[in-house]
Amino acid sequence: MRIAQVAPLAEAVPPKLYGGTERVVSWLTEELVAQGHEVTLFASGDSVTSAHLVPCNPCSLRLSGIRDHTASHLVMLDKVRARADAFDVIHFHVDLLQHVLFRDIAHKCLTTLHGRLDWPDFMPVFRTFREMPLVSISNSQRLPMPPDVSWLATVHHGLPSTVCPFDARGGDYLAFLGRISPEKRPDRAIEIAKRAGVPLKIAAKVDKADQEYFEVIRPLLDHPLVEFVGEIDESAKCDFLGHARALLFPINWPEPFGLVMIEAMSAGTPVIAWRNGSVPEVIADGVSGRVVESVDEAVAAVETVDAINRSAVRAHFEQHFTVCRMVAGYLAAYKLLLNRSATPSPVKLTSPTYPANALSRSAELRGRR
Amino acid sequence: MRIAQVAPLAEAVPPKLYGGTERVVSWLTEELVAQGHEVTLFASGDSVTSAHLVPCNPCSLRLSGIRDHTASHLVMLDKVRARADAFDVIHFHVDLLQHVLFRDIAHKCLTTLHGRLDWPDFMPVFRTFREMPLVSISNSQRLPMPPDVSWLATVHHGLPSTVCPFDARGGDYLAFLGRISPEKRPDRAIEIAKRAGVPLKIAAKVDKADQEYFEVIRPLLDHPLVEFVGEIDESAKCDFLGHARALLFPINWPEPFGLVMIEAMSAGTPVIAWRNGSVPEVIADGVSGRVVESVDEAVAAVETVDAINRSAVRAHFEQHFTVCRMVAGYLAAYKLLLNRSATPSPVKLTSPTYPANALSRSAELRGRR
Repeated sequence: MRIAQVAPLAEAVPPKLYGGTERVVSWLTEELVAQGHEVTLFASGDSVTSAHLVPCNPCSLRLSGIRDHTASHLVMLDKVRARADAFDVIHFHVDLLQHVLFRDIAHKCLTTLHGRLDWPDFMPVFRTFREMPLVSISNSQRLPMPPDVSWLATVHHGLPSTVCPFDARGGDYLAFLGRISPEKRPDRAIEIAKRAGVPLKIAAKVDKADQEYFEVIRPLLDHPLVEFVGEIDESAKCDFLGHARALLFPINWPEPFGLVMIEAMSAGTPVIAWRNGSVPEVIADGVSGRVVESVDEAVAAVETVDAINRSAVRAHFEQHFTVCRMVAGYLAAYKLLLNRSATPSPVKLTSPTYPANALSRSAELRGRR
Repeated sequence: MRIAQVAPLAEAVPPKLYGGTERVVSWLTEELVAQGHEVTLFASGDSVTSAHLVPCNPCSLRLSGIRDHTASHLVMLDKVRARADAFDVIHFHVDLLQHVLFRDIAHKCLTTLHGRLDWPDFMPVFRTFREMPLVSISNSQRLPMPPDVSWLATVHHGLPSTVCPFDARGGDYLAFLGRISPEKRPDRAIEIAKRAGVPLKIAAKVDKADQEYFEVIRPLLDHPLVEFVGEIDESAKCDFLGHARALLFPINWPEPFGLVMIEAMSAGTPVIAWRNGSVPEVIADGVSGRVVESVDEAVAAVETVDAINRSAVRAHFEQHFTVCRMVAGYLAAYKLLLNRSATPSPVKLTSPTYPANALSRSAELRGRR
């Protein structure tokens, strides 16, 4: 299949530092190439890929100090559009601009929504361009969306089996990994560890926006059971997760997916997570971790978590969250899309449109020659 | 002429509170209607106009608490595009998204750039979509732009003669009006007033982003010559400007236009302004104010400003900065655009394009019928 992958330009693919979306796009792209597909990656020029790279910006926007990404994304989408005929499927990992620019060729386009959808800012586009095929990264992510948008599939993220290798032994501490922010609830993690009497290691970066919140958390870190190890890089992360007794994921927001959960599961480390967002879809309760709803339940889960077999956690990961499983999900979605468009149906559009009309007329014209 | 005005959705047209761009769009729209043109205004639904209003959002985005305006603007531009055939000219007052969406009908589109252009974020669009006709609000605003974009005209802002009525007497204080921010240099205004021994009234709002800077300025306000009157509304503004001896405009950034200068001039109040951005284009040195480059020069200007005749200041305003003069400038630009497109020239596009091709083919098809 001739596939275009259209990545955000905020980070390189894969990212030099952070960037969940760009990591997922990289894994997806490399596996599609490995399976013999002809893949073109539209991304920041400092990306590294075995696909055909179309550089859309010399260097990732974040590292270039560019804060408003709209102009750069418009230019990228113009490049994609100019080459649209060369692809069977165009797969977007950006949020908004393609909905109006690619509406007339919606039949070969799909967009994976990588972010939270429970805020009003983007809704005008989703309400207006309902014919654009969408993929959610969890079923729960769909809840705030208008009722009749064009969902094609839910495809959970997956990662290569070798990224976080299985660690059969595990360790004695609880792990907390992520940003120090009110949605991630590091305070809950600390309370759970103290009440369970188990050491807690917190590996977390503190964004500028969360500096004020960090001052609330800082006094809680001063406890013999709590160790704040600060920011850690990708390679240290797998050891950090693999050597833990369990990962604590005590979020209080509707996490659309939560990559760290499957990274821990890949290493064999069970996850104790709050019932919120994607959590009940990602954690098989009692198999790969525990899904809890209160600090009491979390403390009880810490005390019994050793009963969860680390090999079973890894097996759950291998069954559901490898990159191969993710690629199979996307290939099924691509085929569904292509089969749909092979079945002619009356064109249904929400308002009089321009390129759609224009292109269909131009297709008629070509057809007549 | 059948004219579309496309306003930002951040504020109503005219704005309930702040919003320089929306005020200018309102004045332009009302005057075009008064002159007998058929005007359609695409704007926030809480706008008030004598043109035909196409509401693109129930309520202005700022009052709705919507921070990311991209989705709402995409939906608005889709509405404009669906009605494009009904207009001779489409006049955009938004920055970016129309460049890719209206490229194939660039011949009837123009965009007034209302903001500063000396930052890199928007440049990818201006470098890529060079055929899109642009209007600058001062010549100096153009300086940071790529060399070969398609400038159609510079049209200085204008305001209705009655908005800030002429005040023949003036008053005894210096006025500073605007935001308390480092680019506006209220500290310079205070220094000038103290050294000249003349009272200074500061009418200014303090944005959240400038709170820290306000703490630097606050101690300077504690001086018998300095009065901080805080935020004032539109109606109080004209009295505030009209009763002043002079307006101080000691900016240290490339102001693209600076509406407050012509509001003061409308009231007959001369302006003492730093040579920066649009200032030398707006102030006729010695006629409607003084253009200075140092605090020494500004203090000297305060001491001699009474020599400037307030009637001459108003006359300068009436000659150059009324809404009628602005509308004449835009009508000339519209005609230039339409004359250009009436003269057929080989289609020149920077990259293979889609709607352009598609629409020209579809035009051929229609032509053959």
